[in-house]
Amino acid sequence: MQELPFSSRHIGPRPEEAKAMLHKLGLGSLEELVEQAVPNAIRLQHPLQLPKAVSEGAALHELHAMMEQNRLHKSFIGQGYYGTFVPSVILRNLFENPAWYTAYTPYQAEISQGRLEMLFNFQTLVCELTGLPIAAASLLDEATSLAEANAVAVRFSRNKKTAISVFGELHPQTLAVAQTRAETQGYEIGLESEITDKTAAIVLPWPDTKGRFIDHSDVIKKAKAKGALVIVVADPLALTIMEAPALWGADMVVGSMQRFGVPMGFGGPHAGYLAVSEALTRMIPGRIVGQSIDTKGRVAYRLALQTREQHIRRDKATSNICTAQALLANMATAFAVWHGPEGLQAIANRVHDLASRFGDSVKDAGFTLAGDHYFDCVTVNVAGKADELQQKAESDGRLIRVIDKDTVSINFDELSDEEDAKALAKLFGATLSDKAPSKLLGKKRDGSFLSQPFFHAVQSETEMMRFLRRLSDKDLALDRAMIPLGSCTMKLNAAAEMMPLSWPKVANLHPFAPKADTRGYQQLISELEKWLCEITGFSAISFQPNSGAQGEYTGLLAIRRYHDKNGEHNRNICLIPASAHGTNPASAHMAGMEVVVVDCLGDGDVDVEDLRKKAVEHKDNLAALMITYPSTHGVYEESIKEICKIIHENGGQVYFDGANLNALVALARPADVGADVCHMNLHKTFAIPHGGGGPGVGPIGVSKHLEPFVPGHALFSTSHAVSAAPFGSASILTITWMYIRMMGAEGLKLATENAILNANYIAEQLSAAYPILYKGKRGRVAHECIVDTRVLKDNYGITVDDVAKRLIDYGFHAPTMSFPVPGTLMIEPTESEPKSEIDRLCNALLAISEEAKKVGEGVWPKDDNPLVNAPHVLADTIDDNWSHAYSRKIATLPDPAQDPADKYWPPVSRIDNVAGDRHLICSCPPLSNYR
Amino acid sequence: MQELPFSSRHIGPRPEEAKAMLHKLGLGSLEELVEQAVPNAIRLQHPLQLPKAVSEGAALHELHAMMEQNRLHKSFIGQGYYGTFVPSVILRNLFENPAWYTAYTPYQAEISQGRLEMLFNFQTLVCELTGLPIAAASLLDEATSLAEANAVAVRFSRNKKTAISVFGELHPQTLAVAQTRAETQGYEIGLESEITDKTAAIVLPWPDTKGRFIDHSDVIKKAKAKGALVIVVADPLALTIMEAPALWGADMVVGSMQRFGVPMGFGGPHAGYLAVSEALTRMIPGRIVGQSIDTKGRVAYRLALQTREQHIRRDKATSNICTAQALLANMATAFAVWHGPEGLQAIANRVHDLASRFGDSVKDAGFTLAGDHYFDCVTVNVAGKADELQQKAESDGRLIRVIDKDTVSINFDELSDEEDAKALAKLFGATLSDKAPSKLLGKKRDGSFLSQPFFHAVQSETEMMRFLRRLSDKDLALDRAMIPLGSCTMKLNAAAEMMPLSWPKVANLHPFAPKADTRGYQQLISELEKWLCEITGFSAISFQPNSGAQGEYTGLLAIRRYHDKNGEHNRNICLIPASAHGTNPASAHMAGMEVVVVDCLGDGDVDVEDLRKKAVEHKDNLAALMITYPSTHGVYEESIKEICKIIHENGGQVYFDGANLNALVALARPADVGADVCHMNLHKTFAIPHGGGGPGVGPIGVSKHLEPFVPGHALFSTSHAVSAAPFGSASILTITWMYIRMMGAEGLKLATENAILNANYIAEQLSAAYPILYKGKRGRVAHECIVDTRVLKDNYGITVDDVAKRLIDYGFHAPTMSFPVPGTLMIEPTESEPKSEIDRLCNALLAISEEAKKVGEGVWPKDDNPLVNAPHVLADTIDDNWSHAYSRKIATLPDPAQDPADKYWPPVSRIDNVAGDRHLICSCPPLSNYR
Repeated sequence: MQELPFSSRHIGPRPEEAKAMLHKLGLGSLEELVEQAVPNAIRLQHPLQLPKAVSEGAALHELHAMMEQNRLHKSFIGQGYYGTFVPSVILRNLFENPAWYTAYTPYQAEISQGRLEMLFNFQTLVCELTGLPIAAASLLDEATSLAEANAVAVRFSRNKKTAISVFGELHPQTLAVAQTRAETQGYEIGLESEITDKTAAIVLPWPDTKGRFIDHSDVIKKAKAKGALVIVVADPLALTIMEAPALWGADMVVGSMQRFGVPMGFGGPHAGYLAVSEALTRMIPGRIVGQSIDTKGRVAYRLALQTREQHIRRDKATSNICTAQALLANMATAFAVWHGPEGLQAIANRVHDLASRFGDSVKDAGFTLAGDHYFDCVTVNVAGKADELQQKAESDGRLIRVIDKDTVSINFDELSDEEDAKALAKLFGATLSDKAPSKLLGKKRDGSFLSQPFFHAVQSETEMMRFLRRLSDKDLALDRAMIPLGSCTMKLNAAAEMMPLSWPKVANLHPFAPKADTRGYQQLISELEKWLCEITGFSAISFQPNSGAQGEYTGLLAIRRYHDKNGEHNRNICLIPASAHGTNPASAHMAGMEVVVVDCLGDGDVDVEDLRKKAVEHKDNLAALMITYPSTHGVYEESIKEICKIIHENGGQVYFDGANLNALVALARPADVGADVCHMNLHKTFAIPHGGGGPGVGPIGVSKHLEPFVPGHALFSTSHAVSAAPFGSASILTITWMYIRMMGAEGLKLATENAILNANYIAEQLSAAYPILYKGKRGRVAHECIVDTRVLKDNYGITVDDVAKRLIDYGFHAPTMSFPVPGTLMIEPTESEPKSEIDRLCNALLAISEEAKKVGEGVWPKDDNPLVNAPHVLADTIDDNWSHAYSRKIATLPDPAQDPADKYWPPVSRIDNVAGDRHLICSCPPLSNYR
Repeated sequence: MQELPFSSRHIGPRPEEAKAMLHKLGLGSLEELVEQAVPNAIRLQHPLQLPKAVSEGAALHELHAMMEQNRLHKSFIGQGYYGTFVPSVILRNLFENPAWYTAYTPYQAEISQGRLEMLFNFQTLVCELTGLPIAAASLLDEATSLAEANAVAVRFSRNKKTAISVFGELHPQTLAVAQTRAETQGYEIGLESEITDKTAAIVLPWPDTKGRFIDHSDVIKKAKAKGALVIVVADPLALTIMEAPALWGADMVVGSMQRFGVPMGFGGPHAGYLAVSEALTRMIPGRIVGQSIDTKGRVAYRLALQTREQHIRRDKATSNICTAQALLANMATAFAVWHGPEGLQAIANRVHDLASRFGDSVKDAGFTLAGDHYFDCVTVNVAGKADELQQKAESDGRLIRVIDKDTVSINFDELSDEEDAKALAKLFGATLSDKAPSKLLGKKRDGSFLSQPFFHAVQSETEMMRFLRRLSDKDLALDRAMIPLGSCTMKLNAAAEMMPLSWPKVANLHPFAPKADTRGYQQLISELEKWLCEITGFSAISFQPNSGAQGEYTGLLAIRRYHDKNGEHNRNICLIPASAHGTNPASAHMAGMEVVVVDCLGDGDVDVEDLRKKAVEHKDNLAALMITYPSTHGVYEESIKEICKIIHENGGQVYFDGANLNALVALARPADVGADVCHMNLHKTFAIPHGGGGPGVGPIGVSKHLEPFVPGHALFSTSHAVSAAPFGSASILTITWMYIRMMGAEGLKLATENAILNANYIAEQLSAAYPILYKGKRGRVAHECIVDTRVLKDNYGITVDDVAKRLIDYGFHAPTMSFPVPGTLMIEPTESEPKSEIDRLCNALLAISEEAKKVGEGVWPKDDNPLVNAPHVLADTIDDNWSHAYSRKIATLPDPAQDPADKYWPPVSRIDNVAGDRHLICSCPPLSNYR
């Protein structure tokens, strides 16, 4: 008898339960199941070479020792990343709370009202700061937000204007990402160039990377006259005390909300923001939360304008962006609620005062400043002494930014204090002045700011603790029930994996801190790269992409550059099977490729003959194939090796979509099968939580020949950059490191096998009532299965929507709906769900089928039954006027086995999506509007 | 405009709200209120001299730097404290979760079913380990558990047998506490003495402090023959693989559950355990959770046999013990669930195997061991080399125990590994053997162990996470609603105050680690002592008492010893006002004093004339007065100074019960008023959470002349010990340190003032419907008020119980019931509750009064109305057969302002207490009993 290893904690079914489940499938062992499900030709023939699994305690100890190598100096580097204090009440009750971090993207709006309300108010916050009416529910970071805004501007001109003109100096990483994106999307970024008829937009940093505000009123006038849009890249803390950019001409404002209480985390994750004018509403990329009503007219939030998105519009989508940074956006919103408008302004004023006094002092001491107008960052000409000053500052425990040998920047932030300013002034031989006039440019913010009740309801910690609990209690996350989504793996996010995120030496490192300060992170990244290479078979990993979609884009870029390097600039055709997730064509489009769709056969497999035909047809221009494996139908296609061969023979490269990597780990490797590049959704397969709709993490693995073409491979290289930080969302790589370290090769293999077992067991259980679409040659699904609920529609008029909403009454988040086949449910149980929960789900779906039968039999009317009325809410249930054809108990506690004490109540009934899109409300109007 | 200080986060009402509340009271300022409430004669005339308040971030930083001075060596010291790994899922979801740690003692059973179920299974666990049928829901630590068991044995003999005989060596700290207690309670502890007719019990350590098992079968036979009880002090981990002591004769088994996943924390808090035989059921001290049923026969848990307790039986109570170590007992239970019986046994076997092989190796190398039978601890004769070996081990990063210059102990535990055993063997010039026979004595555990479903339901982390959430969701804690208890201050337990508990250098220190390793703790304790001295006016603090009641006992002991020192051994009369909390007389009794009750006047104040009379009457024998201030009636008595003077004039000492210190901090000081000693409930007044029923922390402050008589004042002194660890529950002193550091003198004063404001505001609001009992001379209550619900009983037949249970439907934990006046509710809102929540409570109580009126008016029948049927549960509410005279909505959502999404559902309806006590079930029978 031994203590259980971590893998046995991670995996749901106990060995004896797995045996019983296998027995149900007529099988004797997991290996037998794998033999039936996974084509032999692709099977990995040896165990993964990974360090032997260690216990939770040992892994935490090892990682702690590693991260202790990092050194924590106080940062005055700035450049888009700032010290900020995460209020402990938010840290504990939001960031460290599984009710918040294990939640899924709020597609099922009825069970996501808590985080939707918070995100809605993130949008409100952004609208208030910028003065613009429409904001996204967060983007990935400042750099990608700008890239998205630029694309919007070009698209707004119907692609007639193809120049973006930057006035003033952007942060280098922001510019780099915008340039990468422009290159592939066919527009140009000019620096301080003229404004011409081709100018789609001008970009104005506010302030610029040297901290300067520059008066652009003339440029703005000119831009307006030429019909160019005005994009402002703004610091949100500065905006709390400065006039909203919309008031002086901005059509779009972008930036990062990091300094609103989100740790720097060596680069991420943080929430980027993007706000646009009314006219651009329907062009805004990413998620928007909108207000609507439910069946009884109660206010309800849900994702709005989803028809813009890639899963509907494919290569015509506004962007390939899928995810947001929900958890971080929610932290930023909570930070704004906590401090309230006055508190935010107090922080801004304090920071500005320090900077002003410091600036004056240094100037008095004879130095020249880069500019006279600034908020928190003072850039000084130090005539060749930049490095010397940096070293002196560092020996005092402070990091300053060296721009070039003659120039340094000192950036104050929320954590800076009097002592810092004094010591820094002393470095320049100056004495900190007691007072200084404001250095801001333009008008100060005037009138009320953030007057919405949401930002005033909570000020004491008791209230904040309850506020955060109340919101999260509205939602159903992994801490209460299974989230059986197809494709969006919702496995355990183990507590031990999450712990390191709160360590100061993980949370508080600046991404551009000196290398000597980041040894722990360097080791982490290098070990993780080695492990992920072993798992995928590739030779290198780029950690820069901070979402799966961004991984796709990055991988395709590498392929493009590879062809370019070979002089084959013409190769721009991307084959994509019809069954692909919409993000694939959207990414291909973004990477400047032309999509050619490959047919699928009736059994869901790629039509190899059609593929061959099209590959040959486009032989000369073939750039790539994008393929998901196992397929989006949840099947390991037998022909995958042949498919890869065909592509290679015709000069193309194979891009592997790693969405379903959870079904491959330790059983097969993308590179072995023939892939040249593949992204890994660390936030799914490798245990990083979904955070209620982000962060995502999508590093890519590449074969040797593609290595030169991926970004961020050398520390701090910004060439080919696809996101702002060198290693993307670096801090949460600790989660994946912990996961692999505790699972080891054997644990990872067992996990994959159990994921396949759970899926096949569900397929078997549900086949009693529903057809299971798509199985492999030997009758097995992979790690997920498609349950065809159209039988209920055809026979009894019950839609897949009704089934999904009815599952809420049973206490479940619905599976993925209508993807990849309309009218079906796709279920991926993952290896982490215990048998009892899987049985509970199957029982619920079987019971729902029986309920539908009753509708068909006329026991319940077609328009008044527990299915079409689902989900049922408390207020309606306890109403005396219950006039339904079924009982309250059947409505709300349909599973007789359920303990009423565990009942989850959705706060709203079914939400009217059309009404919400028709009258788009995506921020809370200021209080003055109510008067 | 400035960022809000912590005090403004800690305090509920915003300044403008406080103003409005004052206005309601006809007052213009807090000072005006304080002038009316607090007698001028006792007012502190200067601000407290405390370090200036700092922000959350700064306080965390300062404390972190301080605790970094601690050094973490791996401990092999043993002696009652062992390394253990807290599973991360338990750490995050229980220990760090406000839903668990902010809960109150489960007196209101209907809203405490989650933690009651967990504690019930703590009892089950203890019963399974010991083989005895009845266990307490945890005691304070091993040492006090033994002291309690000894007292039970003496009491069981009807005080005819007055000797306790110890066979084998107890841990020194355990023996010390037992001896202290014996001295004052009039029995003797003999070491290896004979068993005579006077022997109430024999005590057998299992194993002893040197790790040895000694065959006591003859002694046990003799004891049984003489009618002496057998008390075993056992290591619970050893018991997982050894025969349960009840099977070889134990009548009681005590010990500590620390090594079941509770960090050492430099001594505490941990859960002590005590199990007894059937015959001793009604004598067991402390809390017991019993199973009963609710109105519909559903299984329900609640505290059983409460009539034994001091709040009913006063000086005739079984013990003065009030609190338990609920949070720690729950952690230990969760640990047992997590590992399950097999996992626990695997840990025990692994630890034992290491010890056995180490023992054999050292023996082979020529050393003599203290004994041949042991579990995890090997004691070796090293002939004068003890210190040398200790130093060598320490330089390798390991701590071993030096018993004397010739003897060392090496104690293995859950965290020990092969490498440790090898290195330690090497220290002795030995090579670790590969295998060794078992060294256990007596039978191995046989048959099934922990077969109850509760200990098998959960093994994967996903299940454990949901299990912990499900349990906590059944309970109503501070994270969801106000807990308006009178006297049991339930203020904010701020997240920043709780954070340090998870730091390894706070959590993982052995209480007997070398001084050089504990510098951080030393500084913490010394600073905290200074601050608490300033706050109370005393000259020294003893941190040893780990509950308020224990503080009382310790304070009275100091008084006794002081009189003894003065040769006044006769002074044993303790005056206690009639209104005192039952713990006072119980403590006095335990300290060997005789209680004389002093009358109270109609207005609740102490009858000074009666006091004078009795003081004079007992002049020659007067030991002390115990007095609570402000009084248990919630009033600052004007005569307190005079009272103290009378006592002193008659040779007595004044013991101040600090239960209500929350009403004094920064306004008045016990020492200034005339107290000689006072305990402070750090778990109430100083922000340590209640943990769902413990830990408590009750240090005492003493005047100069009493200093020599308090325990634990010098590091590691065990003289006068009242609890096992030198500084009691040392780790959670960090909470109080953080609280005071962030509040500062001004913040603490504001907190007290706001506590008084909130109470007076409630008194004012509720006086519209209920008489408010007891006010001070100028018409003000102190920090709490007594609401007389007897008007509802007299007029409409609605009892205080009905009101309390009906409050659950409104989403509240009931106030303190029937203390100090039967039929009333006592409400202490604390300073932390926001005005909105206070208004919600007042509205609920006013609405309840209206509901009662309706019963009186006949609108609802006397036996079928929402009050007598409260609380209402979900299952009953959605039942189709709703036949009540009122609607479902009135039953369950009576407050029209309440958002149904926030509805709290109690899992059971009103619980039948009598049924539960009549058929006592206080552990879950093993599975075999079901067959």
